[in-house]
Amino acid sequence: MTAGPTIAVDAMSGDHGAEVAVPAALDVLAATHDLRLILVGRGEVMRPLIGSPLPQRCTIVEASEVVGMDERPQDAVRRKKDSSMRVAVNLVRKGEAAACVSAGNTGALLATARFVLGMIPGIDRPAIVSAVPAAHGHTVMLDLGANPDCTADHLVQFAVMGTVIASDLHGTDRPRVGLLNIGEEDIKGTDEIRAAHRRLAAAPINYCGFVEGDKIFSGGVDVVVTDGFAGNVALKTLEGAARFITSVMKEEFTRNPLRKAGALASAPTLKALKTRLDPSAYNGASMVGLTGVVIKSHGGASRAAFANAIRVAIAEARKGVPAQIGELMARVAAAAPPGDGAH
Amino acid sequence: MTAGPTIAVDAMSGDHGAEVAVPAALDVLAATHDLRLILVGRGEVMRPLIGSPLPQRCTIVEASEVVGMDERPQDAVRRKKDSSMRVAVNLVRKGEAAACVSAGNTGALLATARFVLGMIPGIDRPAIVSAVPAAHGHTVMLDLGANPDCTADHLVQFAVMGTVIASDLHGTDRPRVGLLNIGEEDIKGTDEIRAAHRRLAAAPINYCGFVEGDKIFSGGVDVVVTDGFAGNVALKTLEGAARFITSVMKEEFTRNPLRKAGALASAPTLKALKTRLDPSAYNGASMVGLTGVVIKSHGGASRAAFANAIRVAIAEARKGVPAQIGELMARVAAAAPPGDGAH
Repeated sequence: MTAGPTIAVDAMSGDHGAEVAVPAALDVLAATHDLRLILVGRGEVMRPLIGSPLPQRCTIVEASEVVGMDERPQDAVRRKKDSSMRVAVNLVRKGEAAACVSAGNTGALLATARFVLGMIPGIDRPAIVSAVPAAHGHTVMLDLGANPDCTADHLVQFAVMGTVIASDLHGTDRPRVGLLNIGEEDIKGTDEIRAAHRRLAAAPINYCGFVEGDKIFSGGVDVVVTDGFAGNVALKTLEGAARFITSVMKEEFTRNPLRKAGALASAPTLKALKTRLDPSAYNGASMVGLTGVVIKSHGGASRAAFANAIRVAIAEARKGVPAQIGELMARVAAAAPPGDGAH
Repeated sequence: MTAGPTIAVDAMSGDHGAEVAVPAALDVLAATHDLRLILVGRGEVMRPLIGSPLPQRCTIVEASEVVGMDERPQDAVRRKKDSSMRVAVNLVRKGEAAACVSAGNTGALLATARFVLGMIPGIDRPAIVSAVPAAHGHTVMLDLGANPDCTADHLVQFAVMGTVIASDLHGTDRPRVGLLNIGEEDIKGTDEIRAAHRRLAAAPINYCGFVEGDKIFSGGVDVVVTDGFAGNVALKTLEGAARFITSVMKEEFTRNPLRKAGALASAPTLKALKTRLDPSAYNGASMVGLTGVVIKSHGGASRAAFANAIRVAIAEARKGVPAQIGELMARVAAAAPPGDGAH
């Protein structure tokens, strides 16, 4: 039997800190028989939540500080050298953990991970990637906010990383990649987007051309590539639209006693809808392009949502996502015409 | 009694051409007692749909050509001088109509309108603006796709135009304006966005700072300003998300006979939901910044949706939106610190 992955969990960050992170991690530990868990943080805070003795396959690594949710990324990197976030990332760097998970401040986690782990050769910057629900299951989308300004090179690198995530994590064979644009014709979009479009067409990935925002959900592609500005806008718009539609539904279903009776008769349907559109099932964004696996949970994640982020970390650790990205990036660079500006 | 507005309707463009445009225009004519309608296109196509004699307050202006939905904008401007789209815009230019409406190709309409009507002083480029449903009714959003690359100047101009639309068309007193960004802190976003943020804070409009994509729906602001790339992505993402959620609902509500019975009991609720989220109620995007009122209907608009676009044209014509934009832009330019780069 091969040893399972070891996952380091930053158990102190996020809106709810250890109160959510520790029980979530123990839930996943109990359900995953080959998992080894390292809980990183202040023992005196975590121990009462763990109980004693420590469960099998679970260890504690002490970290005395916590990065604040509003702390500036450079301050976190320079000053918080014993934060739970930093210590968890260090464990990945030292090879003591195969992946780490944190619900801490996105900018600080990104800066810390980049500083400690460094980039995969051929990849310039880390990107944030996640799956969003779609007609055929889900669509992998990146970048979701790490890089507001992107060159054509960056977009090509995102396409490589999205392809690896879709194929390794979601089992999609030859993932179809679309480049987000404001129309499907070759003349649409900015210069950088059109340059990326030409390079992607020549790359050894399954590139399908430009797609518009509605294609994120239609099932027409498996990966949507975009800069971090448009990607973050799309993600937040989607979250806002889903919340708005849910609140309108709630309002209409409780408007009067007759409506409430109807809701009762539709209870199984409404429950199924809630399950299918449950955002916690999609918690756990990967910071890809780094030499190690780093998973970001929503700051306000529930126990179930945080557990899902840990499951994403386990899946990426098992597949060795960073090595896969390095390999595919090397093949894409080798296939690029000379002088094309691609790596 | 003052004379009502005269609206020129391009009755030939769009996916359905005269079949939808003519009945929609006659519906609005019948319901709006001071409206004068000019139907622009080929009389032999339109007349059978109008019946005879012509209704009161309705005239026909002949135009022999139609701009194709895939025709390149510059070709439409140079070669289709007798198209229904061009003739409708010409009527606005000559003062014979107070506004025009077309379901034709967006790029061609934008190029034609800009070429024929020209820009309001102080405004560099036309922008596409529309209302989207939100918790407090709706939010005015622009630019929705006319300008993929925007400078800080353009974003300030969009804020002016959005303010006028929200106050004139939607009766919002001192509309609250947000600038779309990937976070609410001053350091977030691109250089152009941060420069626009500083200028807007000094402008005589009700600027509320950066907002993220979910604020489009929350009711926290009345106007969301962004470049045409992010704006188009947000709009298409919203449309895609709404369609996806609707299809999941349909699937779950019809999964088995019990579910179908529940749907029957919830029929009044489902109908109310459909009405509140009906996209046709939001059809009719304005092309603002031009010296005349130009309204773009969705190419595939239904009769009800096209009628809504005509109602938007009537409202803008009654309020004299271009003059209002010119006035507010002059006040904003006068208030800008010298050397600020603003007009």
